[in-house]
Amino acid sequence: MSYHDILKATRSMVTEYMSGLDPSHDMYHVDRVTRLALDIAHDGKKQGFTIDFELVELAALCHDVGDRKYYQGKETGGQLILQFLNQQQYKKADLVAKIVDHVGFSKELGWNDDLDDKEQVYWRNNCYELFAVQDADKLDAIGAFGILRCAAFSGAKNRPLYVPDHKPIDNISQQEYLNNTSTSSAITHFHGKCYICLLYKEES
Amino acid sequence: MSYHDILKATRSMVTEYMSGLDPSHDMYHVDRVTRLALDIAHDGKKQGFTIDFELVELAALCHDVGDRKYYQGKETGGQLILQFLNQQQYKKADLVAKIVDHVGFSKELGWNDDLDDKEQVYWRNNCYELFAVQDADKLDAIGAFGILRCAAFSGAKNRPLYVPDHKPIDNISQQEYLNNTSTSSAITHFHGKCYICLLYKEES
Repeated sequence: MSYHDILKATRSMVTEYMSGLDPSHDMYHVDRVTRLALDIAHDGKKQGFTIDFELVELAALCHDVGDRKYYQGKETGGQLILQFLNQQQYKKADLVAKIVDHVGFSKELGWNDDLDDKEQVYWRNNCYELFAVQDADKLDAIGAFGILRCAAFSGAKNRPLYVPDHKPIDNISQQEYLNNTSTSSAITHFHGKCYICLLYKEES
Repeated sequence: MSYHDILKATRSMVTEYMSGLDPSHDMYHVDRVTRLALDIAHDGKKQGFTIDFELVELAALCHDVGDRKYYQGKETGGQLILQFLNQQQYKKADLVAKIVDHVGFSKELGWNDDLDDKEQVYWRNNCYELFAVQDADKLDAIGAFGILRCAAFSGAKNRPLYVPDHKPIDNISQQEYLNNTSTSSAITHFHGKCYICLLYKEES
């Protein structure tokens, strides 16, 4: 099967998958992230980095498959994608799957470069294809789209938009972030996310 | 029953009612609108208008009961409120009910001062208690809260946030507005609403 056919089959599978979620995580989001990730990858190429655009495109398309906010099955998103791309006989299925398993704000909150497996730490800190998808996904979680998506997620999950006496948590942990999803408001959720993004920016 | 007791019973009924809707129309919204409506009424009093604060408070509390975006029954919101307040033996139940039946952006789109009943037109153009609740509700439909609420409604109703090739309708009719709810995006919905609000402002 040609890459074109694999891409087409993947987009079709993801379109079907996303139609079961809500407007905060729909195919329009996936398409924006894919376009952004490819733009970032093109910038990287101009700067001299060697980048596999197929990996960027397929991982961006698949980045929300298996997202724990929605998916209750035992497989990770990467495992679901590995199975699918192997069925399409795509030779780099394992690399796409690995990227998918490393995209997600709550996953990143659980990482610790001092304690985690050295090889994993090196890979996630040096894989430009991963950076492109991670950053594209974060760009769609801030700004105008980020605000709309955060509120839409609240609407879909029946989480209030603003609760006067709920104070946002500044230096949120992975566990607090995950609990926060069901117990707090859109405003505190957005604050927590932006605060951490700001910390990352200051550190980088 | 004292006004205090009637207010308490009404708030309790509305809290229960709103808990069945979604975060775009929850008790936090009702409380914001009620506070805003009372603030507007206080301003009106300072300017010399005679205002019945009980009507403002009860109508603001009840303004979303029977909202057609959610309620499928045959009664109007006003009819539901009339029945409830009569049960509480509130003497001005009919006035509160009348105000409730006149609050709502889509209702206003259907009004025509040249064609509608003259007495109704005079009343709705001169009732300060109605103005206070109408304006308070509109204030919570624009600005930061308006954006969040519009997106949350999209999330709850599975309406996309932004569809690249959907063009917003500028001078929207009542029918277009009502259809728009299910067929378009949060962005076009918000645009239509703000455009009409701007027209009202220019006319006033």
